[in-house]
Amino acid sequence: MKLQPGTTSRLSEIRGAIDETAHPALFMVDTISSLACCEYEHDQWKVDVTISGSQKGLMLPPGLGFNAMSQKALEASQSASSQVSYWSWQEMIENNEKGVFPYTPATNLLYGLKEALTLLHREGLQNVYYRHQRLAKATRIAVDAWGLENMCLNPAEYSNSCTAVLTPKGCDADHLREVILEKFNMSLGTGLGKVKGKVFRIGHLGDFNELSLAGTLSGVEMGLRLAKIPHSQGGVNAALEFLSD
Amino acid sequence: MKLQPGTTSRLSEIRGAIDETAHPALFMVDTISSLACCEYEHDQWKVDVTISGSQKGLMLPPGLGFNAMSQKALEASQSASSQVSYWSWQEMIENNEKGVFPYTPATNLLYGLKEALTLLHREGLQNVYYRHQRLAKATRIAVDAWGLENMCLNPAEYSNSCTAVLTPKGCDADHLREVILEKFNMSLGTGLGKVKGKVFRIGHLGDFNELSLAGTLSGVEMGLRLAKIPHSQGGVNAALEFLSD
Amino acid sequence: MKLQPGTTSRLSEIRGAIDETAHPALFMVDTISSLACCEYEHDQWKVDVTISGSQKGLMLPPGLGFNAMSQKALEASQSASSQVSYWSWQEMIENNEKGVFPYTPATNLLYGLKEALTLLHREGLQNVYYRHQRLAKATRIAVDAWGLENMCLNPAEYSNSCTAVLTPKGCDADHLREVILEKFNMSLGTGLGKVKGKVFRIGHLGDFNELSLAGTLSGVEMGLRLAKIPHSQGGVNAALEFLSD
Amino acid sequence: MKLQPGTTSRLSEIRGAIDETAHPALFMVDTISSLACCEYEHDQWKVDVTISGSQKGLMLPPGLGFNAMSQKALEASQSASSQVSYWSWQEMIENNEKGVFPYTPATNLLYGLKEALTLLHREGLQNVYYRHQRLAKATRIAVDAWGLENMCLNPAEYSNSCTAVLTPKGCDADHLREVILEKFNMSLGTGLGKVKGKVFRIGHLGDFNELSLAGTLSGVEMGLRLAKIPHSQGGVNAALEFLSD
Repeated sequence: MKLQPGTTSRLSEIRGAIDETAHPALFMVDTISSLACCEYEHDQWKVDVTISGSQKGLMLPPGLGFNAMSQKALEASQSASSQVSYWSWQEMIENNEKGVFPYTPATNLLYGLKEALTLLHREGLQNVYYRHQRLAKATRIAVDAWGLENMCLNPAEYSNSCTAVLTPKGCDADHLREVILEKFNMSLGTGLGKVKGKVFRIGHLGDFNELSLAGTLSGVEMGLRLAKIPHSQGGVNAALEFLSD
Repeated sequence: MKLQPGTTSRLSEIRGAIDETAHPALFMVDTISSLACCEYEHDQWKVDVTISGSQKGLMLPPGLGFNAMSQKALEASQSASSQVSYWSWQEMIENNEKGVFPYTPATNLLYGLKEALTLLHREGLQNVYYRHQRLAKATRIAVDAWGLENMCLNPAEYSNSCTAVLTPKGCDADHLREVILEKFNMSLGTGLGKVKGKVFRIGHLGDFNELSLAGTLSGVEMGLRLAKIPHSQGGVNAALEFLSD
Repeated sequence: MKLQPGTTSRLSEIRGAIDETAHPALFMVDTISSLACCEYEHDQWKVDVTISGSQKGLMLPPGLGFNAMSQKALEASQSASSQVSYWSWQEMIENNEKGVFPYTPATNLLYGLKEALTLLHREGLQNVYYRHQRLAKATRIAVDAWGLENMCLNPAEYSNSCTAVLTPKGCDADHLREVILEKFNMSLGTGLGKVKGKVFRIGHLGDFNELSLAGTLSGVEMGLRLAKIPHSQGGVNAALEFLSD
Repeated sequence: MKLQPGTTSRLSEIRGAIDETAHPALFMVDTISSLACCEYEHDQWKVDVTISGSQKGLMLPPGLGFNAMSQKALEASQSASSQVSYWSWQEMIENNEKGVFPYTPATNLLYGLKEALTLLHREGLQNVYYRHQRLAKATRIAVDAWGLENMCLNPAEYSNSCTAVLTPKGCDADHLREVILEKFNMSLGTGLGKVKGKVFRIGHLGDFNELSLAGTLSGVEMGLRLAKIPHSQGGVNAALEFLSD
């Protein structure tokens, strides 16, 4: 199942659907852009394989990947004929039990991970999720005020991590991104696949607060003006009103 | 001569006044908050002693202090009866000529200084000054739009580094600063001396660009609302308009 | 072909042997512990796949892996039925040509790599190799003086990076390693596989000079004494004599 | 009172002598090179002014200076006519009581100081002193074995931090230091004042252990050989024997 940028998959419902049809498929979830940004329940949702990375909600440089797997996934990997390295966990599990790694791990990032987890637990995971949710809502309020369209139409699927915004017809989203990068040194996400050139993505996750969001939205608003993309002013203003209520 | 926060002294005019009266006083200038933020001409303005520090326009942690002095100041220091260590340059000068220091220098910051100077020269000093001037102007535009008063009334003395803002009568500037620190983790400068509690200072210098300014002004605007300080909305908006023209 | 620890494979001879028999096998070389420690000629020796990593001769933290491959290897990978991710280069090659990566790269280490390459080229690769060769020879001189046996018996295969040393019969090499770690905070490599407990490895590569080697050998010599392993004194002494000749 | 390099002043005896004669002088001690290297009792020894710095036993970069003072020193500073800034504590004391500084402090080093103190207390101060004492003794054993003379002749005054070594008559200690710096990238302390060119100093303090000492002594021993300074071999050897007993 392919994730849309700027949406949150309804994972427990997907789990329910798999269960209802008693389908034997393994349930794999990519949480690279969402772990530590919103509720996630690997065990309760009976996810078979969760993958994640260090560089988003965990606030680290890129370089670490994580896997969590169910008993069912472990068994499947042992009987699988595929040799895809990413799903060859046996050696890692055996070594990890003894507190070591089968290969040289990225030790510096492991020290960083320890600090990141300390920071997250000090803030409290529920507070971390609420902070992301609030900043995401402020972003959507700005997008609405600009009169632009959020690619995610279903409020139940709004993302805490990232908001994908459609530029008006005929307006090149990648040109907007270039203008903003050039003028304000801010790099926004591009639209991938069939929304290439039609969508830009605003990330709002990790080590992020009201003022970093305000700076981000200000860069978008000034970029819209400079790139002459039709929009209403006042997006930043609307977000600030929400955030100071 | 005491500097007001948020103002730029008219140094060449002061020099002129000293010259006109043929007054023998040494001319000392504190550039801690202004070096690498606006034009400064130690030699041309015949400044006798310039003092500066690492932690503002030079974008380094605090820890280094700098002195530049005229021949006249050097001679005065040699004949002076005062033992104030800060003006005892002889040992430093003798050692510096041989490429060393008389005491253990803060070596790490000297490495940082080398990098900082490389960054400044790569951007070009005129560009650095212009960037500061532009962000300072955007700040004043925001202050005007909020209907608040800039402590600096003379446009010829506007500061590229810092804008001191008066809160309306009866509104405690230090309470505003506390609210902003508490809610948005941003620390604004306080009013010193007789403007204590009446003024807050917005710094806009060093490694600073349009988006960091937008974040800063957004924090002030949200703080004004939360601290219930009478003001007009739209300060951030006005600054963004100026910055994207 | 399995590498012995503490030996250098005679790669050009292996290449010659493959050529002589006109064997179609791909020639793969693991240079993780040797790149930037000794001469290596991927092209001239017609190596098909070279693998390497950041954490040894390149003086970086672990976290980057490198592949160099011949046209023959590329073609083989395209027609191979295996899905082993490590040999699936196509996507990487296509993206690298455009200056980007198909997945999020470990950016921090790439900045580090740029610095490491600058350091290596500033020293000069031939000087880097010579430095490794000299320190490796000093290590062997110490091992000889201790009356211990170098696992590598063939001088043509001595390693610039690492010397594997046999402990006398009945002396547990892993106990020695524990004593040294506990007393002197130095972690030596263990013997793997059938030499487990019989061999310890002394690394002498990367950001390493005469004095770091002297500290290393001193730790081994004191460890031998503390662990009561029969040996002659004077290993460090002999190494120092060689290094100061 | 002027300190000799490589000696420890008998501070409690000096205190005793001052007391005996009921001399009114303030007792000032420079602990820059000794704090956290050996016992020091500011209160018990009734020291009036202790000065120290960040860059030695505290294992930090240079940049912080410390003062501790007695009530008597405080009173003296208030009535003193001298304006020497280093002894003008009043403003600092008043601000420190409120948890702040009168001037911008070197904040980065203060964070480092917190970590350094954590490290020292984790090891235990008595262990830290014992470690220094043991490494200092090993250094003197090496110096003896080389047949060189320790400038400090009185065992009661041996220093835990630094050993000053006399080169034989006619042998330039500064040439030796140059050879060692050039060949092994190790910078030894020079002789100051009347022992210039006759003495070199070996530091053995701070974040230092057996193997860093072994590397240091090895550099000296190889340097002695390369600079053709008459000496007996075996200094490192003797130190290692002592350290592994």
